[in-house]
Amino acid sequence: MTQFTHFDSAGQAHMVDVGEKTDTHRIAVASGQILMQPETLKLIRQGDAKKGDVIGVARIAAIQAAKKTADLIPLCHPLMLSRVAVDFELIDLVSGTVSSAIRCTATVEVTGKTGVEMEALTAVQVGLLTIYDMCKAVDRGMTMTDIQLLEKHGGKSGSFRRE
Amino acid sequence: MTQFTHFDSAGQAHMVDVGEKTDTHRIAVASGQILMQPETLKLIRQGDAKKGDVIGVARIAAIQAAKKTADLIPLCHPLMLSRVAVDFELIDLVSGTVSSAIRCTATVEVTGKTGVEMEALTAVQVGLLTIYDMCKAVDRGMTMTDIQLLEKHGGKSGSFRRE
Amino acid sequence: MTQFTHFDSAGQAHMVDVGEKTDTHRIAVASGQILMQPETLKLIRQGDAKKGDVIGVARIAAIQAAKKTADLIPLCHPLMLSRVAVDFELIDLVSGTVSSAIRCTATVEVTGKTGVEMEALTAVQVGLLTIYDMCKAVDRGMTMTDIQLLEKHGGKSGSFRRE
Amino acid sequence: MTQFTHFDSAGQAHMVDVGEKTDTHRIAVASGQILMQPETLKLIRQGDAKKGDVIGVARIAAIQAAKKTADLIPLCHPLMLSRVAVDFELIDLVSGTVSSAIRCTATVEVTGKTGVEMEALTAVQVGLLTIYDMCKAVDRGMTMTDIQLLEKHGGKSGSFRRE
Amino acid sequence: MTQFTHFDSAGQAHMVDVGEKTDTHRIAVASGQILMQPETLKLIRQGDAKKGDVIGVARIAAIQAAKKTADLIPLCHPLMLSRVAVDFELIDLVSGTVSSAIRCTATVEVTGKTGVEMEALTAVQVGLLTIYDMCKAVDRGMTMTDIQLLEKHGGKSGSFRRE
Amino acid sequence: MTQFTHFDSAGQAHMVDVGEKTDTHRIAVASGQILMQPETLKLIRQGDAKKGDVIGVARIAAIQAAKKTADLIPLCHPLMLSRVAVDFELIDLVSGTVSSAIRCTATVEVTGKTGVEMEALTAVQVGLLTIYDMCKAVDRGMTMTDIQLLEKHGGKSGSFRRE
Repeated sequence: MTQFTHFDSAGQAHMVDVGEKTDTHRIAVASGQILMQPETLKLIRQGDAKKGDVIGVARIAAIQAAKKTADLIPLCHPLMLSRVAVDFELIDLVSGTVSSAIRCTATVEVTGKTGVEMEALTAVQVGLLTIYDMCKAVDRGMTMTDIQLLEKHGGKSGSFRRE
Repeated sequence: MTQFTHFDSAGQAHMVDVGEKTDTHRIAVASGQILMQPETLKLIRQGDAKKGDVIGVARIAAIQAAKKTADLIPLCHPLMLSRVAVDFELIDLVSGTVSSAIRCTATVEVTGKTGVEMEALTAVQVGLLTIYDMCKAVDRGMTMTDIQLLEKHGGKSGSFRRE
Repeated sequence: MTQFTHFDSAGQAHMVDVGEKTDTHRIAVASGQILMQPETLKLIRQGDAKKGDVIGVARIAAIQAAKKTADLIPLCHPLMLSRVAVDFELIDLVSGTVSSAIRCTATVEVTGKTGVEMEALTAVQVGLLTIYDMCKAVDRGMTMTDIQLLEKHGGKSGSFRRE
Repeated sequence: MTQFTHFDSAGQAHMVDVGEKTDTHRIAVASGQILMQPETLKLIRQGDAKKGDVIGVARIAAIQAAKKTADLIPLCHPLMLSRVAVDFELIDLVSGTVSSAIRCTATVEVTGKTGVEMEALTAVQVGLLTIYDMCKAVDRGMTMTDIQLLEKHGGKSGSFRRE
Repeated sequence: MTQFTHFDSAGQAHMVDVGEKTDTHRIAVASGQILMQPETLKLIRQGDAKKGDVIGVARIAAIQAAKKTADLIPLCHPLMLSRVAVDFELIDLVSGTVSSAIRCTATVEVTGKTGVEMEALTAVQVGLLTIYDMCKAVDRGMTMTDIQLLEKHGGKSGSFRRE
Repeated sequence: MTQFTHFDSAGQAHMVDVGEKTDTHRIAVASGQILMQPETLKLIRQGDAKKGDVIGVARIAAIQAAKKTADLIPLCHPLMLSRVAVDFELIDLVSGTVSSAIRCTATVEVTGKTGVEMEALTAVQVGLLTIYDMCKAVDRGMTMTDIQLLEKHGGKSGSFRRE
């Protein structure tokens, strides 16, 4: 029967033993978006061009958050990340809505014993949260959505690619 | 013209001056959900009843994350939270989808000079991320969505309630 | 029926609401000891007099740990400590044993809505752990023991004094 | 003459050079217990069965603390732990006392240049502290005791087993 | 005789008791500079205008560091900062040298029981360190210098203004 | 054209990919000094001999700061330091001034994919800041200066030695 690996046979949470695993190159890509009023995106775009660089601050927060993953997620192993890159795409009209959006994509790599899906997802979450923080005074209704793993490679479980 | 308060008139990011604000009681409620295979929810429910308490671990992670908000979000003020409560609701069939879901709702309170929207949203994000972490071995396609502020009260900007 | 305050009526852990409590002066004193070979204590004493200041390092670690309490103990409230003092007493022969010992006593104060018992106990624990760390190469069998609250004052629950 | 390795020849604290050491598999097991009123243990046991899972919260706190060891203990090296497991045993009557107790045992593994005794001991300490925190409203006199290394294996200094 | 307040009468380090002090408005301003090759400053200026915003990253690092002061400086009290602002000035030719420089100035405010000199100085240090990090591949000889308190106001010791 | 490696071709900050780099032994040495009134140095020297060990506290703070570098400097990679040593030299009369000074020198080593210049510089900065903190009540005008990399070895960019 399928079981969650984060619990032992007695149902107790543990940080699972990865000591036997080999150090292999691993990469994970995650993304998510924050929906906002078109007017909010316009303000962000103005700042990006001239002053008030919302995206630049969010990128730094996202990169730093990737490094804090093992501190935030209780059963994550500490990892020595070898790369973190975070991109933001400004979307003027999200299909099926009247909203604009910013899409955040994070790529994390490591040579280690466990994958970096959680690091990529954590970077995305904190990147989006930071955008929320900086724009909330003008748009409290922003929604973060579609935060998901796009792909991962390396390790025993092999590759995953979202269709 | 509307401007982001997190930047000064020269467009430089700063932690805004709240020294003049009065200490008032503030509360914020945020929520979000993670979509998953119905089979994944079934496994979580079994664990909840007997062993492998996914929800219990996620709740602790969410509460601790609320306390780390000022460390994660660059321009947030440190705050001495007076209450953090996090609830999870298991949803068997999300309307308009073939997915099950878990919905996380966080309530944060403080008596202070700034609001606790970011703390409530951060708690939700990390609660959902922790569920993802514990279930990812059986369901890598889970998606976190609809993470948003439900309501806030207190402070100069007054109440906000999502329609 | 008596119940643990850290759980709500549904049995879910939460950081309890202290918003209604008044800010009062609170103090807590905790202590504990680490039993060791008499030879180990002799080495520590020599270092204290001349070089290799085990006690000095342990004191700094204990003070810093008090400030990390809300990060270590999941349901603790963050607090702005107004005083932390940590003392160490070298005991040549612990009664009823053939061991020597070092006794660590921590005093913590705050003006706030919750007590500082956990901060005092955490300081003691990390002070003792640091002594263990620095002496473990010569005495791996050291034991930490009798870690307890000696007294607390302030707040609604009033004073506690260990008999 | 025996000397503490954490000090150089001039008596100055340093984080000792382990660069020449080889990466080997290392494991450490530590334990400790918290003495309490029999009534307190009864309440914990009820919660475990139904709601208010004191042990579950303490386990998560203990696992997370193992990951924070190098931040808490000044001269500890950072390590990428490959496993952390924490067990709790409920003891109805501690021999030679009128107390009940909970015994916490932590096992930590790594493939690295230094041992993980401190990580195992730190996990035990914070696991016990968290139990104290959650039960202190009903039993302030609880005492943490017998916190010690049970065994360690791997590395140049070889195996240690407590008699 | 003059004595350092961070040690008690027995010479032991402690986090001094500020419980009796009143909460007053306090402000501190600190500055420092990093000397560099004129060519390095030219590259930074280009990035500032178009891409590769060294100053923007350094500013965020400096603001976040101010919030970590009590974690970095062992005997500092935790404080709930109400404002942090960090400015950078590009200096083409430092008088008396052949170097260019960037000057970092940090202003920190709080309403609390202790001053914020350490927070302002820590922000400056980490702001300069971050510039060093980002430019070190092209200029390893950069030097950080003249890091000092410019002024402070509030509290019992009153105002300080550097001549 | 020369470019900063911490930005990609679009000018976006990232934690650069070091996955292809080989693990080699790396060492960095940095130093800096804090200028003070001769009377202040006299007080520190008295404490060192008898009580009030300013230097001992600063050394611990510096060692711990080296371990926090990746948390403080946004684009730094996490590293498992294998050695940190910090020395302080008391200088009675700094040439060309009427000041006394303490000079702090930090040596950091690792076997890894990136160098440890930032770790050595961060240790120096926090060591000096801690001295400032402990002496500021008697000498607010102290200045930190000449903080720089003395040498580094290992890695693709080879050795650097300050002339």
